[in-house]
Amino acid sequence: MLIVMSAAADESDIQRVCDTIERLGFEARPIPGGQRTAIGVVGNDGPVDAGRFVGLPNVREVISVSAPYKLVSWEWKPTPTIIELPNGTLVGGGGLALMAGPCAVESRDQIFRSAELVAHAGGTVLRGGVFKPRTSPYSFQGLGLDGLRWMREAADAHGLAVVTEAVDPDSARAIADLADIIQIGARNMQNFALLTAVGELRVPVMLKRGMAATIKEWLLAAEYVLRGGNEQVILCERGIRSFDDMTRNVLDIGAIAAARTRTHLPIVADPSHGCGRRDLVAPLARAATAAGADGLIIEMHPDPSEALSDGAQSLYPAQLDALAIQLKRLREAMLD
Amino acid sequence: MLIVMSAAADESDIQRVCDTIERLGFEARPIPGGQRTAIGVVGNDGPVDAGRFVGLPNVREVISVSAPYKLVSWEWKPTPTIIELPNGTLVGGGGLALMAGPCAVESRDQIFRSAELVAHAGGTVLRGGVFKPRTSPYSFQGLGLDGLRWMREAADAHGLAVVTEAVDPDSARAIADLADIIQIGARNMQNFALLTAVGELRVPVMLKRGMAATIKEWLLAAEYVLRGGNEQVILCERGIRSFDDMTRNVLDIGAIAAARTRTHLPIVADPSHGCGRRDLVAPLARAATAAGADGLIIEMHPDPSEALSDGAQSLYPAQLDALAIQLKRLREAMLD
Amino acid sequence: MLIVMSAAADESDIQRVCDTIERLGFEARPIPGGQRTAIGVVGNDGPVDAGRFVGLPNVREVISVSAPYKLVSWEWKPTPTIIELPNGTLVGGGGLALMAGPCAVESRDQIFRSAELVAHAGGTVLRGGVFKPRTSPYSFQGLGLDGLRWMREAADAHGLAVVTEAVDPDSARAIADLADIIQIGARNMQNFALLTAVGELRVPVMLKRGMAATIKEWLLAAEYVLRGGNEQVILCERGIRSFDDMTRNVLDIGAIAAARTRTHLPIVADPSHGCGRRDLVAPLARAATAAGADGLIIEMHPDPSEALSDGAQSLYPAQLDALAIQLKRLREAMLD
Amino acid sequence: MLIVMSAAADESDIQRVCDTIERLGFEARPIPGGQRTAIGVVGNDGPVDAGRFVGLPNVREVISVSAPYKLVSWEWKPTPTIIELPNGTLVGGGGLALMAGPCAVESRDQIFRSAELVAHAGGTVLRGGVFKPRTSPYSFQGLGLDGLRWMREAADAHGLAVVTEAVDPDSARAIADLADIIQIGARNMQNFALLTAVGELRVPVMLKRGMAATIKEWLLAAEYVLRGGNEQVILCERGIRSFDDMTRNVLDIGAIAAARTRTHLPIVADPSHGCGRRDLVAPLARAATAAGADGLIIEMHPDPSEALSDGAQSLYPAQLDALAIQLKRLREAMLD
Repeated sequence: MLIVMSAAADESDIQRVCDTIERLGFEARPIPGGQRTAIGVVGNDGPVDAGRFVGLPNVREVISVSAPYKLVSWEWKPTPTIIELPNGTLVGGGGLALMAGPCAVESRDQIFRSAELVAHAGGTVLRGGVFKPRTSPYSFQGLGLDGLRWMREAADAHGLAVVTEAVDPDSARAIADLADIIQIGARNMQNFALLTAVGELRVPVMLKRGMAATIKEWLLAAEYVLRGGNEQVILCERGIRSFDDMTRNVLDIGAIAAARTRTHLPIVADPSHGCGRRDLVAPLARAATAAGADGLIIEMHPDPSEALSDGAQSLYPAQLDALAIQLKRLREAMLD
Repeated sequence: MLIVMSAAADESDIQRVCDTIERLGFEARPIPGGQRTAIGVVGNDGPVDAGRFVGLPNVREVISVSAPYKLVSWEWKPTPTIIELPNGTLVGGGGLALMAGPCAVESRDQIFRSAELVAHAGGTVLRGGVFKPRTSPYSFQGLGLDGLRWMREAADAHGLAVVTEAVDPDSARAIADLADIIQIGARNMQNFALLTAVGELRVPVMLKRGMAATIKEWLLAAEYVLRGGNEQVILCERGIRSFDDMTRNVLDIGAIAAARTRTHLPIVADPSHGCGRRDLVAPLARAATAAGADGLIIEMHPDPSEALSDGAQSLYPAQLDALAIQLKRLREAMLD
Repeated sequence: MLIVMSAAADESDIQRVCDTIERLGFEARPIPGGQRTAIGVVGNDGPVDAGRFVGLPNVREVISVSAPYKLVSWEWKPTPTIIELPNGTLVGGGGLALMAGPCAVESRDQIFRSAELVAHAGGTVLRGGVFKPRTSPYSFQGLGLDGLRWMREAADAHGLAVVTEAVDPDSARAIADLADIIQIGARNMQNFALLTAVGELRVPVMLKRGMAATIKEWLLAAEYVLRGGNEQVILCERGIRSFDDMTRNVLDIGAIAAARTRTHLPIVADPSHGCGRRDLVAPLARAATAAGADGLIIEMHPDPSEALSDGAQSLYPAQLDALAIQLKRLREAMLD
Repeated sequence: MLIVMSAAADESDIQRVCDTIERLGFEARPIPGGQRTAIGVVGNDGPVDAGRFVGLPNVREVISVSAPYKLVSWEWKPTPTIIELPNGTLVGGGGLALMAGPCAVESRDQIFRSAELVAHAGGTVLRGGVFKPRTSPYSFQGLGLDGLRWMREAADAHGLAVVTEAVDPDSARAIADLADIIQIGARNMQNFALLTAVGELRVPVMLKRGMAATIKEWLLAAEYVLRGGNEQVILCERGIRSFDDMTRNVLDIGAIAAARTRTHLPIVADPSHGCGRRDLVAPLARAATAAGADGLIIEMHPDPSEALSDGAQSLYPAQLDALAIQLKRLREAMLD
């Protein structure tokens, strides 16, 4: 950590910072600069709380040199984390896991047809919401546990694993009993009570990036889960908010590659929410694959025009089939 | 609502949209345009779920003409909502409520000194975190219920009301028993389980705007609380995320005035989190007041250089005294 | 176009809007809604200036249904524009044009070595700045015409085409005489005087997207050039500004696919400026290719550690060789 | 400046950085850290080009400790810059300059009526565009020199100064002959050819902040003008781009206060473009004043419903009168 003093700082201000550093058990290293002095903190092998310094007189800024996260980093675990699901699906470590299904489970029939179509396309994980976090209280809120049980049956009938979203600790525990991956949605990425709750479970967690979360905040949210003892975390890039209105979000493909440089956890992409438009899902899915994603989670509906939510971004079954073939080709081209 | 068809849409596509509109019990009004046809939805006095249309073939976009929220709107309640706290503080309706205190309750002594200083400056509500949502699991997480009890005692000793943040339904219920306002933080603005939980309580709720939430999403989050039967909601603008790194956030002063045109709920501003810098708190507090805010929530610490969190943005006691005087003057100048 | 009235609008307000529409020679179609009335504008086959309506009493918003651009759209030209450079390079229409070179021309020797290395990697266009728009007046500003002449010689020696940036009409004309593509940088995307100037030239123009420009604004900027009679425009996505600080910008891969749905112009990507980090250039270049880019413009320096600018994002020669092979494979996998 | 090495850096990497620092004539100060080493650059009293270091092996990041700008800073000139216009208007140094007028000069009559109305409200500077940078080539582009001459006459008839926008060096020189302030628009904030051109003139320049420009980039753009010898620069905050669609931009009130901490130049605000909505102009104008702005530039039209551009954000004459009174009151309240 580095504390940069303002030009107006005098000896006593600098001494006060040095004393504080030493009170914390670290070593202070002043670096006189042309316009101002900076003070390095030496000897900390973990993060230091910047809050102890920013308040001191004539401190201009505090720069964190060491990364604030630990368990998610390559320094902590130098080998890629590979998560194996009960049906044998591997997430991480070189393969490309294909997760697909409707935005929401709407009926027993709809999810059974969806499972069949996902399996037909070569997908191995069935997605579908049963507890829906909706922006408006007047929108469809999901079928709850009944929907989840249907989803489990449908997945088992076709050898698929199940991923669905939890909205609070209770739903997380219910999902842990019936599903294979607990999804934490973008709006809950910093719902620390929920992160702590899933950290105590022993079921894989898919953590979506918040729509205005920095990569560092995303990794720190994952750190909450690992710290609880649950090391099976999958990061999911799903698009960030921007000023453009032609797409719902901007899928931050670069974040997949950037996060990869910092963490051993598997990283997947959600091109459906990443753009909100059916016609852009395939190009973005290909792009995420080419950028090194470990998997994709894609919305597909047996009949998008009848979807109760997100119909505009759901692929038609035949489109999922075609996309799966393209992705397989791309993956092979990259491995050659 | 208006459904805009793509240029490629043919009669059958248009008919399909019209049929869907009528199946929903509304009237369809096609408007042939130069390049493409648009179809108006007539007869809906409440919001219509766009999801039913966006998935139909050759639908280019769906434009919501009516506002998606209802209970929070002026159409629903044409008079400003005024919230009266047990100590007589009024939030909304023309006054300027001053809420202040430390980022976090750190000790019994610290919160008692804080309460005395807030009262001395003319504040009537004591702020302080006891359940802290922190980006890093390694940062100070708050003192919990003990801290809250100390806060209640300190506030009572000086005739102040209490506002503190809830992080989940359990903490919300605990806060409802001991505090006067339950704060929902920016990271939880779309934690719908929490919004639903506080909607069932009968204690005022301060809902902070998410750092990338649109004003519409903010109002819809408030709609969740009102829909639960809790009509005492205070909106709080606390800064949005931007590309600039000179301040922590950008306090969206215009959002205070813009939201005012749409809702009867009181709106306050948090200039401390809005910028993250002590030296900008006063100008931003004055600006929010001049823009018509119903109140301010400001971080003040008896000794910022010793603060365990956010010391950099906490005012010194004397600065709060001086600011309170400036704000009083501004308010009078506006009322003249 | 659709004009949405506020709830307070009365008959006379609505009539005023209808009269204005008819004064402009169009037909007005009122659509009474549950909460408010909307008025459709029928009969315009070109864009209508919203400015004529937004100022009228009780007009809530004006929604443009027809696209505001024309010459760049598929409606105007249903076949992809393919630009052929003097050395035979085709940009658009299915191939992948590889443009590479240093951020800036630094010396005769450096640009000759660069040209040799670009050709060796299979690139066909040499990039390099001679007129540098720099954020700081104290940064290296480029070698000007001398640098451009060296660049031309170096390119000719290896059968390459030349692309370099213009910063004003004079430099644009000078570049038109010596280079094959005139680049308009992101900071000048809405420098309309410059857009108008290059519109009068007959040399291909590469128009970079502004770092906060919507796709619509980007296409309208291109419309300026086409309107001047210069139909050879290449769009270049180079990253948008975001809140994250781990990369310099966020390369908006989705914008490549989204713009493709609206325009016949070729679209290339600049992954180097898109992230600002050498280690992310390859994954982003692959991603842009997989998303359907018609070409890539990449920074490569014979010796990045000696680069006078942007050394951090310049590839080493061997990295460009390796990337070119990966891209060729990806492209083939997509064409199969 | 501080160079932070990656964890993988070895002695030779560190030595290479130190050697480079010393080759540049500075002193290198290594600071070994827990996870990685950082190297301080000592002895530079001006900015150092980070480009020399970022390219070196195992350099993780380069942190600029000293500000990159110089002439605009308080370190360079410790007293506020006050600009006096020919009609006696002072911009900077404690007063509040009121600049108002239509978005565009539309006719001789319209600008004469505007000047009369601005003077009536107590404004002392007449604004109005004659060279209009428009997003669409199909929008009204301005009346050019004729409009400017009418504007000069109208202003003189009422003792007003004139501010209007330049779009290139030629228009800047023409404006320098007839107007009192040359405006550089947000889209041209980094049009360095234009900045250099106005730097050679001796007429005050109003530099609008780009809609995605950091405060640092804004100050560096001003540095271009001062470096040319023109020290009369007025900074103008006019709103930044955000994700919200309820207002056209987000007026960054905090940037007025933040820039004030770094520069001696006067800072004004443009609430009209800052929000794009007439009903928010007054609250934002009051807010900017309360935050310490040295002036305001506001759009007012004799008859907004007839405006050829930006009618939606232009005040009615009576609204400008009322606002001017409010602002006077606020200013007095702040000075008491």
